[in-house]
Amino acid sequence: MSGRSQVKISEDLRLCVEFRDVAAAALRISDHVVKTPLIANDELDRILSAKVLLKAETLQTTGSFKFRGALNRVLRMTPAERKGGIVAWSSGNHALAISAVAARNGIKATILMPSDAPRTKIEGAERFGGTVRLYDRATEVRETIGAEIAAATGAVIIPPYDDPDIMAGQGTVALELAEQARERGVSLEMLAVSCSGGGLAAGCVIAMNGASPDTRVFCVEPAGFDDTARSLASGRRESNAPGARSLCDALQVATPGELTFPVNQALLAGAVAVTDDEVRRAMRLAYDLLKLVVEPGGVAPLAAALAGKLDVAGKTVALVLSGGNVDHDTFARCIAV
Amino acid sequence: MSGRSQVKISEDLRLCVEFRDVAAAALRISDHVVKTPLIANDELDRILSAKVLLKAETLQTTGSFKFRGALNRVLRMTPAERKGGIVAWSSGNHALAISAVAARNGIKATILMPSDAPRTKIEGAERFGGTVRLYDRATEVRETIGAEIAAATGAVIIPPYDDPDIMAGQGTVALELAEQARERGVSLEMLAVSCSGGGLAAGCVIAMNGASPDTRVFCVEPAGFDDTARSLASGRRESNAPGARSLCDALQVATPGELTFPVNQALLAGAVAVTDDEVRRAMRLAYDLLKLVVEPGGVAPLAAALAGKLDVAGKTVALVLSGGNVDHDTFARCIAV
Repeated sequence: MSGRSQVKISEDLRLCVEFRDVAAAALRISDHVVKTPLIANDELDRILSAKVLLKAETLQTTGSFKFRGALNRVLRMTPAERKGGIVAWSSGNHALAISAVAARNGIKATILMPSDAPRTKIEGAERFGGTVRLYDRATEVRETIGAEIAAATGAVIIPPYDDPDIMAGQGTVALELAEQARERGVSLEMLAVSCSGGGLAAGCVIAMNGASPDTRVFCVEPAGFDDTARSLASGRRESNAPGARSLCDALQVATPGELTFPVNQALLAGAVAVTDDEVRRAMRLAYDLLKLVVEPGGVAPLAAALAGKLDVAGKTVALVLSGGNVDHDTFARCIAV
Repeated sequence: MSGRSQVKISEDLRLCVEFRDVAAAALRISDHVVKTPLIANDELDRILSAKVLLKAETLQTTGSFKFRGALNRVLRMTPAERKGGIVAWSSGNHALAISAVAARNGIKATILMPSDAPRTKIEGAERFGGTVRLYDRATEVRETIGAEIAAATGAVIIPPYDDPDIMAGQGTVALELAEQARERGVSLEMLAVSCSGGGLAAGCVIAMNGASPDTRVFCVEPAGFDDTARSLASGRRESNAPGARSLCDALQVATPGELTFPVNQALLAGAVAVTDDEVRRAMRLAYDLLKLVVEPGGVAPLAAALAGKLDVAGKTVALVLSGGNVDHDTFARCIAV
């Protein structure tokens, strides 16, 4: 585990998202998002020798935190922009979120999804009203297809993480969590979140820096997709090896975001990576002990804590369970002993 | 669905549990139980054309509401009684609860469980520290074995439902729920809970009668084990046919409780029964939409609402998801489409 101390924002550091943007996002979306529960479990505390609070974003509308960012972004579209529709790309959860938010606001949405995305995510996006177009991750570039659709239709591109409004929306997870911890009289020493493009991590670290500056924020990636960890080490945006595979369908990007990485580089306390076996173990524990359905990518922080990759012992820590959209056959395989 | 109006407690009706007992139980156990979240889901509301609030007792310590009653009862044991230990019988969730509560209070517990109980419940009771003795439901009478153990060891018998302290403890589910609804400014028209021996139903209807008297309380049983429904109709405690089978392992008693039935008879608005297919459908929906693991017996109220057996349309209703202890292979079969 990286040992960086909590970094404070210096006066001359300019980031694309500030605490006030997260606070404004929270206000903007508050009537429409689920205030997800912060769940404690005595047996989990014993297993980890820690006081653990789980932020169950699995219970968010559309089954993941992505609804927050999507809603915050869409609510800022102008009437003219809304007429042109939305085009978005996503491994799944951003697709579900954009589809649902667009439908609720009477906006057309075209969603690019990899053809190997979980069925529940593809079918869910369609059920919520999105027009799904599948692409081949090996041979097609989703950004290029998205740009072509936007040019042809006048649609607004809403990317999954490299967007200040998306980042601010995702940051409301940590802002809400910090408030819930305060209501319980709990002082959080650590927060860990899943990391792919880095939007959740960036939003949350900005939120925590303002709301609970002594809380060190870590991000957790899948083995083989530890681009943020390596980028934090090298100081520049590193790429993952082509052909890498992971059970965590939601956490597979090529490289950290252009906008998210500077935030994460400035403020994150560290990054760790978890294997598929560690992810399966955490999903099984979430099933057995917590009675929660958590998807592979959503359980990564819990997996890291269970694997001893986060130094939680003796601490009060919050772990975000960021999503629960997983095909039933995959889930059944993961929880089988 | 039975159409009885909410019944008020008349001045001359004496029940073995009163509202003040539930309120006292809530105070007694408050430092040790999870205040379980009241979960809303927009898509579920659309499916049921209702405003639905789910009380997720699946997230309670030991994975079911039974922890509340067990704790309330054990905390009232005298020091002398504690030395003699506890003997209890249970299809599973009461076993888990008594084992955990006893261990936390340094009390020995012997638990009688049917040999066909789910593995997760048997192993869980042992893991929590209980001494499990299996019996054959077809040939042995658990009350007799329990009485023999109590006579031989001086242990206190803590039955799963026919005990005023157990009933009062289970009633804290509804008391807490009524408070959470009030905090949200919501007026509950209906509450539905699972029913086996009737302890949860009796405790909850007492609690609601005091805390939210306009809320009509229904209980839901499995088809083949609808003894409470038939007893409410006939006015006396009816038995189920021997050899009945149900997916709901937690809801299989022979007849309503001696203490619980007079309460339920006086106050319940009605009782309905659900089939195994309806239970499976509800478990699948809880998985797909709510990301919650709910056991067959725990999902019965949601199953009844989805099957149109509770008249929820247009109403604000609360459904208790009472437990989440289910073997992974059973769960995988139930959520498969």
